[in-house]
Amino acid sequence: MTQALRLGIAGLGTVGASVVRMVARRAEAISATAGRPVLVTAVAARDRARDRGLDLQGVTWFDDPVALARSADVDCVVELIGGAEGPARQTVEAALASGKHVVTANKALLARHGPALARAAEAAGAALAFEASAAGGIPVVKTLREALAGNRISRVYGILNGTCNYILSRMELEGLTFEACLKDAQALGYAEADPTFDVEGFDTAHKLAILTSLAFGTELDAEGVSVEGISAITPLDLRMADELGYRIKLLGVAEATEGGIEQRVHPTMVPKSSAIAQVMGVTNAVTIDTDALRELTLIGPGAGGEATASAVVADIADVAAGRTPPAFGRPVAALTAPVRAEMQQHQGGYYIRLTVHDRPGVAAGVATRMAEREISLESILQHRSESAAARDRHGRSGLPVPLVLITYAATEAAIRESLDAMAADGLLSEPPQLIRIERE
Amino acid sequence: MTQALRLGIAGLGTVGASVVRMVARRAEAISATAGRPVLVTAVAARDRARDRGLDLQGVTWFDDPVALARSADVDCVVELIGGAEGPARQTVEAALASGKHVVTANKALLARHGPALARAAEAAGAALAFEASAAGGIPVVKTLREALAGNRISRVYGILNGTCNYILSRMELEGLTFEACLKDAQALGYAEADPTFDVEGFDTAHKLAILTSLAFGTELDAEGVSVEGISAITPLDLRMADELGYRIKLLGVAEATEGGIEQRVHPTMVPKSSAIAQVMGVTNAVTIDTDALRELTLIGPGAGGEATASAVVADIADVAAGRTPPAFGRPVAALTAPVRAEMQQHQGGYYIRLTVHDRPGVAAGVATRMAEREISLESILQHRSESAAARDRHGRSGLPVPLVLITYAATEAAIRESLDAMAADGLLSEPPQLIRIERE
Repeated sequence: MTQALRLGIAGLGTVGASVVRMVARRAEAISATAGRPVLVTAVAARDRARDRGLDLQGVTWFDDPVALARSADVDCVVELIGGAEGPARQTVEAALASGKHVVTANKALLARHGPALARAAEAAGAALAFEASAAGGIPVVKTLREALAGNRISRVYGILNGTCNYILSRMELEGLTFEACLKDAQALGYAEADPTFDVEGFDTAHKLAILTSLAFGTELDAEGVSVEGISAITPLDLRMADELGYRIKLLGVAEATEGGIEQRVHPTMVPKSSAIAQVMGVTNAVTIDTDALRELTLIGPGAGGEATASAVVADIADVAAGRTPPAFGRPVAALTAPVRAEMQQHQGGYYIRLTVHDRPGVAAGVATRMAEREISLESILQHRSESAAARDRHGRSGLPVPLVLITYAATEAAIRESLDAMAADGLLSEPPQLIRIERE
Repeated sequence: MTQALRLGIAGLGTVGASVVRMVARRAEAISATAGRPVLVTAVAARDRARDRGLDLQGVTWFDDPVALARSADVDCVVELIGGAEGPARQTVEAALASGKHVVTANKALLARHGPALARAAEAAGAALAFEASAAGGIPVVKTLREALAGNRISRVYGILNGTCNYILSRMELEGLTFEACLKDAQALGYAEADPTFDVEGFDTAHKLAILTSLAFGTELDAEGVSVEGISAITPLDLRMADELGYRIKLLGVAEATEGGIEQRVHPTMVPKSSAIAQVMGVTNAVTIDTDALRELTLIGPGAGGEATASAVVADIADVAAGRTPPAFGRPVAALTAPVRAEMQQHQGGYYIRLTVHDRPGVAAGVATRMAEREISLESILQHRSESAAARDRHGRSGLPVPLVLITYAATEAAIRESLDAMAADGLLSEPPQLIRIERE
């Protein structure tokens, strides 16, 4: 029998424990498909006393993951510590420096140090595999890296954060506020005590930067992602979206444009009939647009111990089978420097929700400011205030009312300028809400 | 530079021509990701004079694909001839016998000779790759073979035939008959002049048998697929499905049951809210249920020259990169013998559309025959005939009317027996329509 691939698992949280169990449970199948057995020979975690319900007989325990990474009894280090610096980074660097393969689920680490780590892996002739780092259990890294060689990709976009999709789904279905849904998500364990990283879009941005590099053959550029979260989305926006035939999703979008590659994370209106609009709750989805396939969509669980472990174990099986392609699909030297498209030059439709005073001339003022910048309107929605306030002879109350505009394709710059002009004119009683529309 | 992988393309129809163009168009990307160039050095087709718009300068032409398969100037034979026997089989066998890798899109060949060809590939130390053989451009073969090592799969099901999905989508959306939609599909090139292979479910069965083997690690067993097509589906069934919250899709379903593996192809009622119900037109979709991921769904183009070529070129890139896993995921000796579950033991919900005489006692007779076999009903739908025929004092016309029943889970045997008893009782004025319901 061929020699076993010996795994060192650094980090025994939910995912680490799932990986240990899965490798044992699926030993026969992994061995048959990879052509050699896979065996956990070492683990590293801080608290040795904690009962994780794992059978660790015969497994060497390390208090220091860096020592595990250097151990002669480990062929492949599985980094599940997390964090862009500190022990996670030191462990991965030490493993690669000693010629070991690395499997990691650490998107923050990759977003910050991906290119350097890929270079180190190449120098060592070792794998750096990270299927679990983007869209959890969905095999999108493998798909982008290996299954689309014949395709020119024009866009990759998706729902990459289950917390945000859960919150937006509940806001939509139950008419609740962001704050109420966030609280529920925290109670259910879908959101962290400090939810900033998820709800402000940074987690999606890290994942998107990884997918962008794989899709376009460009060096990973996490700094180049324009990021906006969902905390400003209101129940009114979701109602308006519904009325206009859209749903609101937090999307990560990477798109090849004339001006370079756009990487953007923002709440997005998607047509209700699109595949991505059907994705509710903590589920993730990624759509890849290409010349040959037009549209390929993958839908599955984006988080959770078992789903993440599924991706980690797939990487482990690839390493065991000797399938160790370059980390980002091609050698680092063959990745091109990313050319960032300016967000101000972004072209697309916009949903704009203004809060204006319900009085004569306001609509005309708004329309003029948009026409000046050649922004065309697809629809206008105005629901008059239903309060019993005194109204003038035109039925106008003078109170703040929402005015919703859907534009045809316009540049972000033109939209921003027109809104600034409206504000300077005193037309707006509150800052405007702006949500980009993404077409299929 | 590493030596190029030299391709011999056998068959220059739509797919073959797309492959030749794609390999040229994507030469740089394929070379960068695979680690070596890929080059078409030989082609074989019957009609040399035909203008295919291809640049074949410097490419050796073979009239006989078997001679191409034996050529010393070819490392990898791409079989795109089609058919389970004859030149396609001879070409693949000759290629493997002379130690060459084989990439094929030929599901009929695999369905009939897959295990023997996989054995030949193993003996030769060569790849036998067939991503394009199931679900066209969707990378489901790679996903099942490489991305789910940690998962125990319980079910794989999907829309695997674009022709049938196109016909059913149009029947539903426009209220048309099967015959009318088939005619349109033929005019648009979505269906063959002899449509039997597609509409009677045999194409889906071939694809399903391939997916079953990959999902369950069993030797391919195309003979074990229970097959039923869509030609008996009526506009009335689609209207009833809609009213009951379902859509009708031709599904291929492979499921691990206590009695063995069920492989079945049949028109299926799926809940309107399911991901698979959203898939309209010629698009394909596959859902994989597993212990760790619960549900993973892949949606994309199932046919067409470019989409099929995308899958073929992905296989070529894998071969070039040295990623040559066993054809069916594990060595042939490690595949288990398939244990067929009896279709009569299939457990599930059923839609049953009876045509009964509109007279007293009929509903009671039907209900009795079902109760005898402990079949419980979830819903009953009866739309009285709207004709102006004379009615008795209960408003009954005595004419044939449809009576639609939705059952809770029951065995196929119990359902069939109860229908036979109703027929023997003289309750049915036409043979019953029976459509299985598939739950998410």
